[in-house]
Amino acid sequence: MPEETVVVELGSRSYDLMIGNGSLTQESSRSIESVKSIPSSKILLVDDENTGLYSNAFHAILNQAGRQVFRYTIPAGENSKSLTKLTAIWDFLAEHQFDRSSAIVAVGGGVVGDLAGLAAATYMRGIDWYVVPTSLIAQVDSAIGGKVGINLPVAKNLVGAFWQPRSVWIDPDFLSSLPDREFRSGMAEVVKYAMIADPIFFQSIQSNVGNINRRDTKFLNEIVLRCCQIKAGIVSCDERETEGARFALNYGHTFGHAIEAAFGYGSFSHGEAVAIGMACAARLAATLKMLDPQVADLQNQLLTELSLCIDCPQERTELVLEKMKLDKKRASGGTRLVLPTRMGHVKLVDWPGDDLVRGAMLGK
Amino acid sequence: MPEETVVVELGSRSYDLMIGNGSLTQESSRSIESVKSIPSSKILLVDDENTGLYSNAFHAILNQAGRQVFRYTIPAGENSKSLTKLTAIWDFLAEHQFDRSSAIVAVGGGVVGDLAGLAAATYMRGIDWYVVPTSLIAQVDSAIGGKVGINLPVAKNLVGAFWQPRSVWIDPDFLSSLPDREFRSGMAEVVKYAMIADPIFFQSIQSNVGNINRRDTKFLNEIVLRCCQIKAGIVSCDERETEGARFALNYGHTFGHAIEAAFGYGSFSHGEAVAIGMACAARLAATLKMLDPQVADLQNQLLTELSLCIDCPQERTELVLEKMKLDKKRASGGTRLVLPTRMGHVKLVDWPGDDLVRGAMLGK
Repeated sequence: MPEETVVVELGSRSYDLMIGNGSLTQESSRSIESVKSIPSSKILLVDDENTGLYSNAFHAILNQAGRQVFRYTIPAGENSKSLTKLTAIWDFLAEHQFDRSSAIVAVGGGVVGDLAGLAAATYMRGIDWYVVPTSLIAQVDSAIGGKVGINLPVAKNLVGAFWQPRSVWIDPDFLSSLPDREFRSGMAEVVKYAMIADPIFFQSIQSNVGNINRRDTKFLNEIVLRCCQIKAGIVSCDERETEGARFALNYGHTFGHAIEAAFGYGSFSHGEAVAIGMACAARLAATLKMLDPQVADLQNQLLTELSLCIDCPQERTELVLEKMKLDKKRASGGTRLVLPTRMGHVKLVDWPGDDLVRGAMLGK
Repeated sequence: MPEETVVVELGSRSYDLMIGNGSLTQESSRSIESVKSIPSSKILLVDDENTGLYSNAFHAILNQAGRQVFRYTIPAGENSKSLTKLTAIWDFLAEHQFDRSSAIVAVGGGVVGDLAGLAAATYMRGIDWYVVPTSLIAQVDSAIGGKVGINLPVAKNLVGAFWQPRSVWIDPDFLSSLPDREFRSGMAEVVKYAMIADPIFFQSIQSNVGNINRRDTKFLNEIVLRCCQIKAGIVSCDERETEGARFALNYGHTFGHAIEAAFGYGSFSHGEAVAIGMACAARLAATLKMLDPQVADLQNQLLTELSLCIDCPQERTELVLEKMKLDKKRASGGTRLVLPTRMGHVKLVDWPGDDLVRGAMLGK
């Protein structure tokens, strides 16, 4: 399958997303070519314990391209998005005399990307970095747009930066080895893109749900490509979430983040919580008569076919509500919600009152 | 004296430096006006134990302007530019529910600005910040240009960001209370600006050295204004030290940083080390026949009249040399030096060999 390039247009900070099945095997001449474009001679490859297979291959590609490669492997899981690990990477870089012309390559999912990206954003006031996302959620979302960060004990992603990578290399073949739960979680974000931006994409997912569930290579490639195009378009309009385009990406996330937090991180994966969040948001939009209830049903049916739960847990509702009101993205006036108005379109609305929000969670 | 405004031109990140004697007293209507321009309703004022006088006044101005103000005071001194203090500020912001629309105001010298600026750069991926520099070195240098950072045990300023403030409010009247040593240190940076950019400014400092040493208000205002103009011009051309204009600001600094590090931070103040560094650099340039030796003499005479030492300590020369070779700003090919070619002009040159550099330190 030919490699596709999607450009994230950000002036002097523009970069390419290079997407292709098999593009990041050691045998691929394309991967060697693109790695040769890295100007840095000294590179820190950051990966986690689960991404060894792909990072070994990429390590070899970097070596073939004549780069001096060091490697820093973190434990898999959200706990690695910590100040402790960030400090360890800073120390490693200093100890090995990395300078401003050096670079970091992150090979892994969202945790690796967020941590390695923040290290790149802050070491010597910012060095180049590159991403090789290995999970579905990273390939379609977290590796694109430069959001990097760590968690503090008091809140997730409380410390971070916007620091755009120089290139993102995406090989959808990597998705074949993902655990089912991670794959499903990533599909929640895929459905999100369709809901916020592209009715035709939604139909295509609907028609191919069987192929997707069995991870047919051709369809995964198409899905990843379309999501990258949508996300790149939004990021290009609104790099720092200040211009009012990027808000759409938070569809399902205000509910979702609150559910994750209320039940303890890990009880629900991010994608599982976002799926429930989109179901709640669509129900709320229908109640508010902003959305045809049939569209809400179509979305929820598709999520169900992708083995994602759409029912909000019926306990801890008040805690979820409280967490929503503390949302990081709230304006001075209070939390606002991203709600769908029709297939492929969402709108930012003021808090409609606790009762209605609670009702959406209780399935009303 | 009328307030002057110098613009740092950086597109959407442009901001004003507002300079005026007495402009930041509580009675000044101008200060109230400019503070009213802060859109944030919630503000963290960061200061240190020594800047209470000025931060009290500014705190009152913020209150008068109807802002909700919290305050975080750090111990004075370089030790506060630490990860421990940065983490404490993050925690304080989170605990008091600061959000993306909140802001930080730094009232103090370089340490307060660097620390508070990095907190602003990284809290929730970046919030607005403002600077009220209280030392000479901060008013003419560190508060302008968005360089923020902290020290790690292994090296100074190893972690940081470029994060431009929204406004810089400068009241040269504050300089009247500076300890002598701090004032002298700041004058080293002032002489640097003249040497790298402005022969007429150099002459003006020469002619008024007596007035400057007795901290005549009128002359201090002129000096601060001219330095702000020069620095703003350079930063506007080269925000991130990548375009080859900002390098000039490092005149005297490669020697200076190495001297500071070799003798243990605090033995020499930054400005004292930079003065010695400029003397070494000028001697080296004369040896290399890049500079008329009379210009080196003029510079060194002026530094002496400002009570700055121009003689490099004759011990630890090899350690200084080693530190210079590890300089953060070195290119892949090795450390480069900023050397003067004539009054008001400097040039970046490749490492001329250990012997010549050592010779410049030994006064040859």
